[in-house]
Amino acid sequence: MSDNLLSNINNPTDLRLLDEAQLPQVAQELRDFIIDIVAVKEGHLGASLGVIELTIALHYVFDTPNDLLIWDVGHQAYGHKILTGRRENFHTNRQLGGISGFPKRSESNYDTFGVGHSSTSISAALGMAIASNLKGDFNKQHIAIIGDASIASGMAFEGLNHAGVTDANLLVILNDNAIGIDPSVGALKQYLTAVKEGKNPRQNNMIKSLNFDYSGPIDGHDIFAVIKELKRLQKIKGPKFLHLITTKGKGLQQAEEDQVKYHAPGKFDATTGEIITKQEENLPPKYQDVFGLTVLDLARKNEKIIGITPAMPSGSSLKFMMDAFPERAFDVGIAEQHAVTLAAGMATQGMIVYCNIYSTFLQRAYDQIIHDVALQNLPVIFCLDRAGLVGEDGSTHHGVFDLAYLRCIPNLIVHAPRNEIELQNILYTAQLGLANPIAIRYPRGRGVINNWEQDYKGNYQKISIGASSRLVNGDKVAVLSTGTIAQNVSLALEEIIDKNKIAHYDFPFVKPLDENALHTIFKTFSKVITIEDGTVIGGFGSAITEFAASHHYISMITILGIPDRFIEQGTVNELQQYCKIDVKSLKELFSSL
Amino acid sequence: MSDNLLSNINNPTDLRLLDEAQLPQVAQELRDFIIDIVAVKEGHLGASLGVIELTIALHYVFDTPNDLLIWDVGHQAYGHKILTGRRENFHTNRQLGGISGFPKRSESNYDTFGVGHSSTSISAALGMAIASNLKGDFNKQHIAIIGDASIASGMAFEGLNHAGVTDANLLVILNDNAIGIDPSVGALKQYLTAVKEGKNPRQNNMIKSLNFDYSGPIDGHDIFAVIKELKRLQKIKGPKFLHLITTKGKGLQQAEEDQVKYHAPGKFDATTGEIITKQEENLPPKYQDVFGLTVLDLARKNEKIIGITPAMPSGSSLKFMMDAFPERAFDVGIAEQHAVTLAAGMATQGMIVYCNIYSTFLQRAYDQIIHDVALQNLPVIFCLDRAGLVGEDGSTHHGVFDLAYLRCIPNLIVHAPRNEIELQNILYTAQLGLANPIAIRYPRGRGVINNWEQDYKGNYQKISIGASSRLVNGDKVAVLSTGTIAQNVSLALEEIIDKNKIAHYDFPFVKPLDENALHTIFKTFSKVITIEDGTVIGGFGSAITEFAASHHYISMITILGIPDRFIEQGTVNELQQYCKIDVKSLKELFSSL
Repeated sequence: MSDNLLSNINNPTDLRLLDEAQLPQVAQELRDFIIDIVAVKEGHLGASLGVIELTIALHYVFDTPNDLLIWDVGHQAYGHKILTGRRENFHTNRQLGGISGFPKRSESNYDTFGVGHSSTSISAALGMAIASNLKGDFNKQHIAIIGDASIASGMAFEGLNHAGVTDANLLVILNDNAIGIDPSVGALKQYLTAVKEGKNPRQNNMIKSLNFDYSGPIDGHDIFAVIKELKRLQKIKGPKFLHLITTKGKGLQQAEEDQVKYHAPGKFDATTGEIITKQEENLPPKYQDVFGLTVLDLARKNEKIIGITPAMPSGSSLKFMMDAFPERAFDVGIAEQHAVTLAAGMATQGMIVYCNIYSTFLQRAYDQIIHDVALQNLPVIFCLDRAGLVGEDGSTHHGVFDLAYLRCIPNLIVHAPRNEIELQNILYTAQLGLANPIAIRYPRGRGVINNWEQDYKGNYQKISIGASSRLVNGDKVAVLSTGTIAQNVSLALEEIIDKNKIAHYDFPFVKPLDENALHTIFKTFSKVITIEDGTVIGGFGSAITEFAASHHYISMITILGIPDRFIEQGTVNELQQYCKIDVKSLKELFSSL
Repeated sequence: MSDNLLSNINNPTDLRLLDEAQLPQVAQELRDFIIDIVAVKEGHLGASLGVIELTIALHYVFDTPNDLLIWDVGHQAYGHKILTGRRENFHTNRQLGGISGFPKRSESNYDTFGVGHSSTSISAALGMAIASNLKGDFNKQHIAIIGDASIASGMAFEGLNHAGVTDANLLVILNDNAIGIDPSVGALKQYLTAVKEGKNPRQNNMIKSLNFDYSGPIDGHDIFAVIKELKRLQKIKGPKFLHLITTKGKGLQQAEEDQVKYHAPGKFDATTGEIITKQEENLPPKYQDVFGLTVLDLARKNEKIIGITPAMPSGSSLKFMMDAFPERAFDVGIAEQHAVTLAAGMATQGMIVYCNIYSTFLQRAYDQIIHDVALQNLPVIFCLDRAGLVGEDGSTHHGVFDLAYLRCIPNLIVHAPRNEIELQNILYTAQLGLANPIAIRYPRGRGVINNWEQDYKGNYQKISIGASSRLVNGDKVAVLSTGTIAQNVSLALEEIIDKNKIAHYDFPFVKPLDENALHTIFKTFSKVITIEDGTVIGGFGSAITEFAASHHYISMITILGIPDRFIEQGTVNELQQYCKIDVKSLKELFSSL
């Protein structure tokens, strides 16, 4: 082990003591280190493997943390973390209490800007660079590292457009590997590909049109070339742009060959690269597949059906429809705003559009939902995957605000199915001709019905808009749940001794509320408990308190859900425990009533 | 009047019966018609004057409404409205019950997509064009007309980036007049200016890089040239881009010379163009000026203070600081997402950033508030102008969702000052070193304190975060107001007979709530009324019902505010009447208690 260089690098200062000639060895060790740990502990693999040389070069050339590195999205920052004091903790990546899977300011002063969502790096770096100029610190370097999928998002363009008219000391490094989580799309991607292939004259490119000092494209795995170019750029003031060509998954053959699968492959054999497939027989389906398979089935029967995803064909399972009906299913890239208004435009022409956006990313299109869809009452069907607590991706990715931010929008129906059957039935109902737009939110991961695909898939029942249902009778307390957290209530109720005490109601519609049922409930029960995997502020529970207030009911209402703070990473169960909405906490609560 | 052509044009079919040679006369008449009516009835002037020739040419060449015109933002659509059946109603523009100041689907089938916010046209038109292809309608034309300020917004780039890889029959017309409401900014604007001046080779431009068939730039006031080019483009399939050079305010000398002022000049002399200034002595200040003057004053004393506006230097009155400290006050263009994350980047470096965005436009940056600011708990100071009901701009512009969509965000302080003094004091307090980000929301228009500038300006008092105050004593009912709607409560209370009945509390902090005060209130009063100029769903009233529920108070709570529907245009007072939060409605309510 005396030959191992990485084990002696505790921070970038150690790295800078090495000869440049030793850096390829560091790169190899860093790659192996990441592969060995991610193979066992899971995590995002491909992105970090693709920027090993760049990461080393950046910390070697620049005076981090005085110079500021801003990693866009952050999937690619594992190497950065390992070189900046977190090598020994790296095995805790994405675990409860461990290091975050993304750069995070509270974790290290080398993490200058917290990320998780894409395309923020240019704006953030520009803000830092302008601040440095104002403070008279003209030598400080501000470097945004952004992928080609992320730079196509509108926000990145806004950052470039502003930076180009400043004298900010900003370096934007385009990590061009032609893929985000799924392959990149769009006209800019085609343009970049042409640049790579030498088909566009370098002297008049798009980036130069925005007043950037453009250099590249160069091979991002040639560490000496990268260092040389960074040193050159270090001396140039103002906005600069370096175009690097890299390979996602670089150094692990399978990861290079199947870049989508190896974005976050789960456990795999570190030597062979083979993914260790779990025994998955008889498991309930993933919610994303219930969406994907149902929409595919509906699309077969109705040619007006269209699917849209902003850069998540695999994660949303819209892929099924994209394969079967490529002309009617669209990956528009990381462009949530565009995705929503595109859907609105289609809806004006009578198309039935399923617009699938992860709950946390729909925050990017909030105005478009209000202004382009709901205000015009266009019956777009929003499908919000990864709603609620998402687990290991942590605070940047939990989809816990949606019920609150959607509920205040007029015309919009807000639905959270209880299980796979409710999900497929609301997807079916939505295309029968709703008078309003609808948002359907469902969680990451698997459902609860083992035989869904065999016994229920395609066996559609029309859902009555606004209807709730009573799942369990009881005479003392009414528990009102919305969405899949109902399962925790059910399991907890099974475990309590007094079976007659607690009634359980499923309120899949957070809006419109089932007011008839609520009148009955409030006339019957003096205690009402609401539960949701969304914020306790402004969500379903809040709707129930508003209802009770407006009708002057005085039952005691307890709101369970996500407390008013950002929730960190961990397994979903661990996080539910933290929020006291896990089965055990509910059982204790119910037993105490 | 027999010579008047416009009076015989009731729809575009009538227009198409004319000889091309007659169209300049139509243009002149249309210009005069708009000037004559807007001079008296007020409205947006400059934008429509700038596209008179284009508007006539579009309806002359294309088969509207079968061919689809999508006007971006919509300020420029007066000519379009007048030519499409709304000439006789045009005098009702922006009034309660009248025609909307913006294209609106429910108003006319020539209005294919409702607008108000910018940069949606390309996405919407692309959605329509893709739908037409799927329906086999390959001859239908889909035309987005977008200004140079709007096309610089990220959302427009997302639309272009997608369109460029489709075969959609889309024509994007860039109405390049170098100004939005204020002069355009950014690198793209510089690029377009260079194109206009012949400094960029036409054959390798940025738009062509995105796979568009680019043509132009051509003079947008040469109606024959525009018609000729539209006819040529009509025959070309796929995405096309026409670059037109126009002059905002064209045809009215003063409007051409002072384009900012004549964007929406108020009443003016139709012949001379002179703006009719109202007698404004002793009026209370505009809230925007309280912001602008206060931030200017604070910036003089603290060099860490920075101001940011996305394209609203005049409307926000950040102009004062921009003039005095151009290096510390930034107009970033129509780029709300970038504005917020730029502010976050600056805040990481210790700058104190006032980020001023109209409430309705902050919806565009919702994710950035959550993900880039609140999650990292960076003490950015958001100043939300035009919060609440904005009046004549109508449903696209009311800032009524902010309390609901902000309240669920952890770490964020949400404040609505009651008057000019509270506004300046919270602006002062915010830069003393808050531990959290804060959103300060205040309305369009003038305050209530005639002598603010003389007696109070700069006379700062530190505000205790979370504190409420009792304005009026009473023993039966507690009225809790947040923000400037307090004034309506005060005026209503002055008019009721029983002065001892109703207590009035000012709750400027919607978050954190003044829980001590609330405990006292709920222990004292069996009736509580909340009032806000925000949605009754999810806002301040909702917060109060949550509080009451969580502490098991059983007082009757009534929530007053904006009901769960989109509110149309009208004067603020008319709209408050509709929502029953005007002085008269409140007086009646209070008297009935």
